[in-house]
Amino acid sequence: MLTAAEREGLCVVLVRSRNPLNIGAAARALTNFGFRHLRVVEPYEAGFREARSAVDAEPVLEAAEEFATVAEAVADCTLVVGTAEGSGRRTEEPLDRLETVAAEMLEVLHSGVKKVAVLFGSEKVGLSNQDLSHCQRVLRIPTEPGQPSMNLGQAVAVVLYELVRAKDHEPAREAASMASAGDRERLAALLAEAVKESWGEALRPNPTPEERARRLVRHLALTEADAHEWMGLVRRVLWKMRGHAERG
Amino acid sequence: MLTAAEREGLCVVLVRSRNPLNIGAAARALTNFGFRHLRVVEPYEAGFREARSAVDAEPVLEAAEEFATVAEAVADCTLVVGTAEGSGRRTEEPLDRLETVAAEMLEVLHSGVKKVAVLFGSEKVGLSNQDLSHCQRVLRIPTEPGQPSMNLGQAVAVVLYELVRAKDHEPAREAASMASAGDRERLAALLAEAVKESWGEALRPNPTPEERARRLVRHLALTEADAHEWMGLVRRVLWKMRGHAERG
Repeated sequence: MLTAAEREGLCVVLVRSRNPLNIGAAARALTNFGFRHLRVVEPYEAGFREARSAVDAEPVLEAAEEFATVAEAVADCTLVVGTAEGSGRRTEEPLDRLETVAAEMLEVLHSGVKKVAVLFGSEKVGLSNQDLSHCQRVLRIPTEPGQPSMNLGQAVAVVLYELVRAKDHEPAREAASMASAGDRERLAALLAEAVKESWGEALRPNPTPEERARRLVRHLALTEADAHEWMGLVRRVLWKMRGHAERG
Repeated sequence: MLTAAEREGLCVVLVRSRNPLNIGAAARALTNFGFRHLRVVEPYEAGFREARSAVDAEPVLEAAEEFATVAEAVADCTLVVGTAEGSGRRTEEPLDRLETVAAEMLEVLHSGVKKVAVLFGSEKVGLSNQDLSHCQRVLRIPTEPGQPSMNLGQAVAVVLYELVRAKDHEPAREAASMASAGDRERLAALLAEAVKESWGEALRPNPTPEERARRLVRHLALTEADAHEWMGLVRRVLWKMRGHAERG
């Protein structure tokens, strides 16, 4: 995970983008994932203006910096990464999978002071060999060979997601609301009573009602609220069944 | 990594999508990442037609299946996953990070025969609580709190990317024989009867017994065997309670 300060080190560079919707979508992806620095190189002027003046334009887009050349846009960056299609490559650059390059990008960003640039080419032709000559790495998103290229906004979203996704060792479920082991035990005990009550004398000894009940709850990923809902139902059912037994 | 055959098991379900550009972008993301099955529930008709007839419409979109309800759209799926915003959540569902839920989705897809549905809500309001009641898991893409929601096409791209990205280590666990959505629906129906039977005239109208029942089963990661065990117990309990009602 990246801290807010570390995210400051990333610059997303759009090179010769034309479509205002795509430029807007790229800006939105930055916003969604907590990045702030968008740079544009030789944007198609009308498209860039239109994107900027859209009603719901992102502040990221308002603050975008414009450069005449890739060289100027990446001048202050320690690591410069290009993006390319998995298929139809027009360059001899070795392509690394996004996952691999992202790890290198993270290392630089974790410094908290060094900058990383990631370049995205135009919708039609991607980055030129000239653009790629500024890049130390070229990443590819693992799309299917032979398929049309990714939409620019989607490609930006996927790359930024890879940078913020939890690594495999980080805890994942937001644990706060999960039922405690005690709640689970109480639910199992109530279910064991329901097993006994509903089978009555037809109950077989093996597995025991307690074992059956624990087997029933073992796969429940219950929240606290769920556990109380279940206990409420089982208590009510027991009450109803016992009413029957008393009167029957 | 998923083989082509394993990718066949994934259904992307768009619920009440309106914007043809977003529907088109979602279809394109499927194509880019080698998935084929798009399902739409209650699409905004004009938008869906427009998306389908776009000049460069994806074959995936041409082949999209239309359903009247979420229940029908996911009936053949073993695992049903909802998507929600990290911030502004309107539900008590525990949210799991995309990375975690993707691992579960992969386990089911690795079976090569079982299906996984992943639901995306409308651009404006996301999935309703009613929609979410069909989901065993709700994932969130780790976006920044307080930021606007992700664009639909970008959200679909990020989720599909997570499924195809290289794992740091392949999962070792064997895919359990999980219960189908049909089994879960049958269990929910039996539980709804138990709710009605046990509360009788004291039953409050809201939430309905059916909603309560689906809420009770939504987090059960049931195997087929578990589901049958549960159904056996609930049937027995119903029988017992009804015996009471008949004689009482």
